[in-house]
Amino acid sequence: MPVLMIKVRSREREQFIDITAEVARRLRETGAREGICHLYVQHTTAALTINESADPDVARDMLHVLRRLAPRHDADYRHGEGNTDAHVKSSLMGTSLSIPFTDGELLLGRWQGIFLCEFDGPRERQVVMMIR
Amino acid sequence: MPVLMIKVRSREREQFIDITAEVARRLRETGAREGICHLYVQHTTAALTINESADPDVARDMLHVLRRLAPRHDADYRHGEGNTDAHVKSSLMGTSLSIPFTDGELLLGRWQGIFLCEFDGPRERQVVMMIR
Amino acid sequence: MPVLMIKVRSREREQFIDITAEVARRLRETGAREGICHLYVQHTTAALTINESADPDVARDMLHVLRRLAPRHDADYRHGEGNTDAHVKSSLMGTSLSIPFTDGELLLGRWQGIFLCEFDGPRERQVVMMIR
Repeated sequence: MPVLMIKVRSREREQFIDITAEVARRLRETGAREGICHLYVQHTTAALTINESADPDVARDMLHVLRRLAPRHDADYRHGEGNTDAHVKSSLMGTSLSIPFTDGELLLGRWQGIFLCEFDGPRERQVVMMIR
Repeated sequence: MPVLMIKVRSREREQFIDITAEVARRLRETGAREGICHLYVQHTTAALTINESADPDVARDMLHVLRRLAPRHDADYRHGEGNTDAHVKSSLMGTSLSIPFTDGELLLGRWQGIFLCEFDGPRERQVVMMIR
Repeated sequence: MPVLMIKVRSREREQFIDITAEVARRLRETGAREGICHLYVQHTTAALTINESADPDVARDMLHVLRRLAPRHDADYRHGEGNTDAHVKSSLMGTSLSIPFTDGELLLGRWQGIFLCEFDGPRERQVVMMIR
């Protein structure tokens, strides 16, 4: 099974980007029928999560809550690059996902989508995809 | 290896349901000796987590903290279904778990249990289990 | 593939301990070329996360934010052992990681390190490592 690299371009500092269609397409191209689709983001100020993709306000509300949990500015932060909030959000959401698939299709629930979470963009991001 | 579906019935809006015994039983039935037990919840207002199962107050306290992190009502929420808090909690806890096993037994720590986290019940939920 | 156990000794109540070099060394010793490196922590008051390892202030700032999200003392906590905060932080960070590798090397991003998160130390902790 080849190691696949998915490139994602973010356009804002904070943004949830739906990569479901891209992951599903790449999975079909491998011809694999059943197994686990592992996704891994190679960054410390971005993340991966599964959540509702139908209503974009869900992602918007999630970013709103995350900004309150890890504010951008805090007199107690010591990390010099000014993006501590993005590092915290990355670990809260997580950097890896493991999604089962059968008959070549991801076993996502009806409302589920796969999101690349950008917390310190805009940037070019990279997600590793490996089938097992 | 078959794909297994575990159905879980929640009884309250927010509830941690211990599914450890069910997962362990299903694993034994497969006859698999060593590998990874992948669990995946197909919902955007539920989650999976590992935490202490001995004292039910741990799960109760976790729900208490999560309610403060993502309050049910917030004038800034835009998602129209009124369950933004449940979506946020789902991504904070996560939708997939990968648990190693040997000799047909999950390598859980002494105090660890596997929980289906319900954040918008009561409902019937579904967890996909795949052995690799 | 053998099941590997990585022992980690924490020195403070709360501490992020970089275990990247140890995981990379163990991976090389297996001789495996390509696959997924699964890590699993067998505790309910510790966790695993990936984040920046270059500047130690990132881990320090993350602990600062986590302490505010789950304060050590709260009149509403019911769990009698006084470490509810540690249980919450464990589930927020997560107990398992799945990291792809090729040519025997972990596909970590340039700034990424693997951390054992101690939230109720000092203690001896154990991480299960399994290659698939």
